[in-house]
Order: sequence, then structure tokens, then C-alpha cells
Amino acid sequence: MDAETRSEILEATNRALCEHGYADLTVQRIADESSVTSAAIHYHFDTKEELLNAFLDDLIERFESKLSCEASDPRTRLDAVLDAVFSRKDPGADGFPVAIMELKAQAPYHELFRDRFLDFDGVMRGVVADIVRDGVEAGHFDEADPEEVARLVTTMSNGAHARAVALGEHPAETRRVVEDALELHLGWTPASGVDE
Amino acid sequence: MDAETRSEILEATNRALCEHGYADLTVQRIADESSVTSAAIHYHFDTKEELLNAFLDDLIERFESKLSCEASDPRTRLDAVLDAVFSRKDPGADGFPVAIMELKAQAPYHELFRDRFLDFDGVMRGVVADIVRDGVEAGHFDEADPEEVARLVTTMSNGAHARAVALGEHPAETRRVVEDALELHLGWTPASGVDE
Repeated sequence: MDAETRSEILEATNRALCEHGYADLTVQRIADESSVTSAAIHYHFDTKEELLNAFLDDLIERFESKLSCEASDPRTRLDAVLDAVFSRKDPGADGFPVAIMELKAQAPYHELFRDRFLDFDGVMRGVVADIVRDGVEAGHFDEADPEEVARLVTTMSNGAHARAVALGEHPAETRRVVEDALELHLGWTPASGVDE
Repeated sequence: MDAETRSEILEATNRALCEHGYADLTVQRIADESSVTSAAIHYHFDTKEELLNAFLDDLIERFESKLSCEASDPRTRLDAVLDAVFSRKDPGADGFPVAIMELKAQAPYHELFRDRFLDFDGVMRGVVADIVRDGVEAGHFDEADPEEVARLVTTMSNGAHARAVALGEHPAETRRVVEDALELHLGWTPASGVDE
């Protein structure tokens, strides 16, 4: 399958998933969101599970490339992670967080989903741990355990996601708490700027 | 409806929900788990939404009464909260966390569920904030913002729940991180004991 078809199918999967939810997601509904026929989708992906696995894989890749700015200051990179993770402009305006929540609830029954969520978790924790390590080394941050800070930020982001869905709460509420915790751990206030 | 019937129906709801999940939960399946007929369940609860609303309400009440030990030392009370929230003996062994996750994913479409999750959140944050306030006042904890510490513990508990379901991770992993964060915020190490 060429990259363009794959990308069109996965974007249509995103739209269909947001609109109909996991339980009501069908290949026909994905086809309805794209110019690809349901027969062609079936040809490329044997099962709904495989298709959603590719969808999650694609999400992780995009998240990873969004956050890979190795060259810049660790403080800027940490700010970028917090921006990416905690700043949904309009929570609840689209069904995306709900759809991801439903897929998480399916993880105990679908090993492929669980593996993708473990991948995503590994990527996110790895990115944060690298930043903390670099920042400590460069003298920007106080001595801190990179893995532990990564776990804090990642688990708070998992919590913010659940709160957006279950409570309709904006992730900015969680970001504030994470920023204060980072200040205690790293001796550095996020968003305080690199030039201070 | 007498308290005994109500309690039997709600316990059966718990079992049926854990076994079949939200989407496949039917009044007949709840009846199958109890000595109450499905007609009697329908008589007491007009809709599945109402029944699950009562189920969540009951959960909150039990959680609240479990944590209401106003008399004792704030440090003991904080330990009790961490015990209640982060120590699942066998994550994934029953379907309860998955069922709650599914109900959270339904919250955007069911105002009653959202209201119950908001209640639960309010109770949990209130309990933690009260403990922090009491502990600071008694000189056991460093000066700290009770609401912020409560938000930290509660959001980490939301994250631990999502991680248990999506990743199969034991909440003890999150507890460790919360304990270290509490040490930084309160100058007190959880589980360090009251007599130190």
C-alpha cells in the first residue's frame, strides 16, 4: 500500500473513531470518511484490531517526531512537552480523547492495543527522562532522578486525559500542578524562559 | 425499596459489570447475579443509566466512609488514603477498573455519570485537602497549598487507574512517585510512621 493511501485510511479512521466511538466503528464508516473503498481497506487490514493498531502506531510516530528537537535547550524542550501534553485548546470539542479512552479500556482484551500503549508510554517517558538528564548535566536543573520525573509527568498526563473525558476538565488544571512539582524536583519553573 | 434489596442489586451490578463490561450489561445479567428478578430491578430502576448512577453513588459513599477517620493523626490519615487509592493487590485480576474506565468514557454522553465522577473527585480532593490543612496546622507538614496537594494526589490516582487498565501496571509504581512528591511538598515521607 502506498504511503498516501495508508495515511488517508488512518486519517479517515481517526474521523470515524471520533464520530462513532470504538464500539460502533466499522470499515464501512471509515470508507465513508475517505475516497478509499471498504473493499480496499479490508484488503490492506485484515481486522479492525489491525487497523486500529496501525492507527495507534501512527499516533506514536507523530507524537515522537513532534517532540524530537534534540538540538535545543532542555528547558525549551520540556516546555514543548508540556505544551504538547497538557494544552488541548478545546477539551471535549472533538471525540478524540474519548476514543483513546475507549481503546485503553479495550487494552486488557487486545494485546496489540496494550503493546501500542506501552510503546507510547515508553516514548513519552524516554523523551522526558532524556530532557531531565540533559538539563541536569547542563546545570539548568537540580540533581533529580530522570526516570522518576518522567514517570510523574507521564502519569499526570494520563490523569489529565482521564479527567478531560470523565470530568470535562481542561488539562491546563493539571499542567499547573505539574509545573509546581517540576519546580520542586528540578529547581526550575517551566515557562520561566530560557534566558532568565 | 429496602436497603437490603438495594444493596443486593448494586452488588450484583458490580459483578455483572466486571464480568460483561458496560456495553454488554443488561438487567437480565444483573438479575442472574442475584436473587432479585429482572422485573423487580426494572421496578426500582427505570433505566440502566439510573441503575449505574446508583451504583456509582454507592461507590462514592463507601469510599467516603472508608476514609472518614477524622480523629486520628493527619499522617496516619494520609497513609490510609494512599493505601486505599494505590494498593490494588492484584491489578487486572477482576474487571472492576476496566468497568470504571468504560463508565468514564461514557461520561461525555451521560450527565448523571459525569456528575457522579465529579462528586467522587470532590470527595477525594476534599479528604486530601483536609488532611493537608490539619497536618500543616499541627506542624506535622511544611506549609503547602492543600488544594494543590489534593489535586496532585487525585490526578496521580486517575493516572494510576488508567495505567492499570491500559498498561497492566501495578498502582504501586505511581504510589512511589506520589510519595516522593509529597515529601517535597510537605517535608514528610509517607509510611515513615507517626512516631518518628
